[in-house]
Amino acid sequence: MAARKTSVLLFFFMFLALCSAFPRNKNKYKPCKHLVLFFHDIIYNGKNAANATAAIVAAPQGANLTILAPQFHFGNIAVFDDPITLDNNLHSKPVGRAQGMYIYDTKNTFTSWLGFSFALNSTDYQGSINFIGVDPILIKTRDISVVGGTGDFFMHRGIATINTDAYEGEVYFRLKVDIKFYECW
Amino acid sequence: MAARKTSVLLFFFMFLALCSAFPRNKNKYKPCKHLVLFFHDIIYNGKNAANATAAIVAAPQGANLTILAPQFHFGNIAVFDDPITLDNNLHSKPVGRAQGMYIYDTKNTFTSWLGFSFALNSTDYQGSINFIGVDPILIKTRDISVVGGTGDFFMHRGIATINTDAYEGEVYFRLKVDIKFYECW
Amino acid sequence: MAARKTSVLLFFFMFLALCSAFPRNKNKYKPCKHLVLFFHDIIYNGKNAANATAAIVAAPQGANLTILAPQFHFGNIAVFDDPITLDNNLHSKPVGRAQGMYIYDTKNTFTSWLGFSFALNSTDYQGSINFIGVDPILIKTRDISVVGGTGDFFMHRGIATINTDAYEGEVYFRLKVDIKFYECW
Repeated sequence: MAARKTSVLLFFFMFLALCSAFPRNKNKYKPCKHLVLFFHDIIYNGKNAANATAAIVAAPQGANLTILAPQFHFGNIAVFDDPITLDNNLHSKPVGRAQGMYIYDTKNTFTSWLGFSFALNSTDYQGSINFIGVDPILIKTRDISVVGGTGDFFMHRGIATINTDAYEGEVYFRLKVDIKFYECW
Repeated sequence: MAARKTSVLLFFFMFLALCSAFPRNKNKYKPCKHLVLFFHDIIYNGKNAANATAAIVAAPQGANLTILAPQFHFGNIAVFDDPITLDNNLHSKPVGRAQGMYIYDTKNTFTSWLGFSFALNSTDYQGSINFIGVDPILIKTRDISVVGGTGDFFMHRGIATINTDAYEGEVYFRLKVDIKFYECW
Repeated sequence: MAARKTSVLLFFFMFLALCSAFPRNKNKYKPCKHLVLFFHDIIYNGKNAANATAAIVAAPQGANLTILAPQFHFGNIAVFDDPITLDNNLHSKPVGRAQGMYIYDTKNTFTSWLGFSFALNSTDYQGSINFIGVDPILIKTRDISVVGGTGDFFMHRGIATINTDAYEGEVYFRLKVDIKFYECW
């Protein structure tokens, strides 16, 4: 009887485990290092050359390089060099630069493909972190891959959860990046 | 005598092992997860705006954005958002989207450099898979790297073997992607 | 007394260890494979079509595709297919091709973001190596990530230290790439 009860309980807990919410693997592992940083992107729009930290450099046929393309900006590639800060204030002392590109890649909603790096240069961290991933912009939090690092992040891998913390029209946006390393070396 | 025979056999098998064909490491390891998927790319050519899933957004000097560049399309960057299906039928229910870019990068043959992701959203799989690699298009099967993943593919790494399953002129092509994960978490 | 001396020495060596220069982790690990290669980039400038191995294919508003953009080339994307050699001679027999792109991504100094692959095809090596990273060009040696590989570099990861070995104006440059793999399979 006792054995039967145990096995019923066991199946019940196995059932609970299978029901656990997406993303399923996330809670199984503890990060070996954890960083939360913000970066600030100001897109060039033809009038803000002095402040802009990003520029549209490619566009589909019929679009141009000072106005984001129609159809959810599909086909625009932007290159950026954005300040990274420890808090959500654009004017805080930068601890590094976020450098790389984003590509608007859908015609019927806002999504982008990201290829970029953090180059960190502060008393706490010296080194780079390299990111790749797909960014369904309208979803609150999105996961991308940390595919490598150098310096203090030598050979690190992990997951970065990004979140559009604030934006102003189509000129400024701020991303909060919650980086969890699961391979630290 | 028996020992001698054994050692001769041993050397013979060691010799066979050394002779094994390229790619040499492939057969040593068994994938921990295996997926076969198809994606379908329809390049915008100035006339197919409604159906196109990809657009040329960058081209070298002298080329334009509705006709693939001369010299094996060298210098063209295309951005895509292609449906992923479980079989080779463009009209099957998509299980996700292949999003990112390809770059034609040779002047005297067809090769491309790929940076893209699979965003999967089906009952079987929720999550993204990130790919990077060089694609010598005219070779039957080409290997690229799976550099990371999220959701059900949390921290995964592996190899994807791609294969141009079908194409129609320079407008449509279908890629079969055989994904073997060797790090699964 | 002896115990005290030992602990003083111990603290002294711990202090030395903490003082070790950036990048701190580099000396802790020995590579499982090590390669030194060179690649040669000749940028198309409107006059060198026959020799050029790279072309500007994207530029910010107001710039063009035959002259690198003002403001430290910010916003230029170049696509390349460069010969790889074992020594620093452009005319040595190539052992493969470096293919991909670089993006000039800063307005007030020279930095670039790199996404490229080595496709090696020699008697010694058959396979590809995939690189991602940020390249602060004016610093003597820069580390980027080796995020994956195929063939003889199946599932490899590591660090590549790059170094501008030579350049001629803004047309030719040669990069020395010191690849240390720390995951070899």
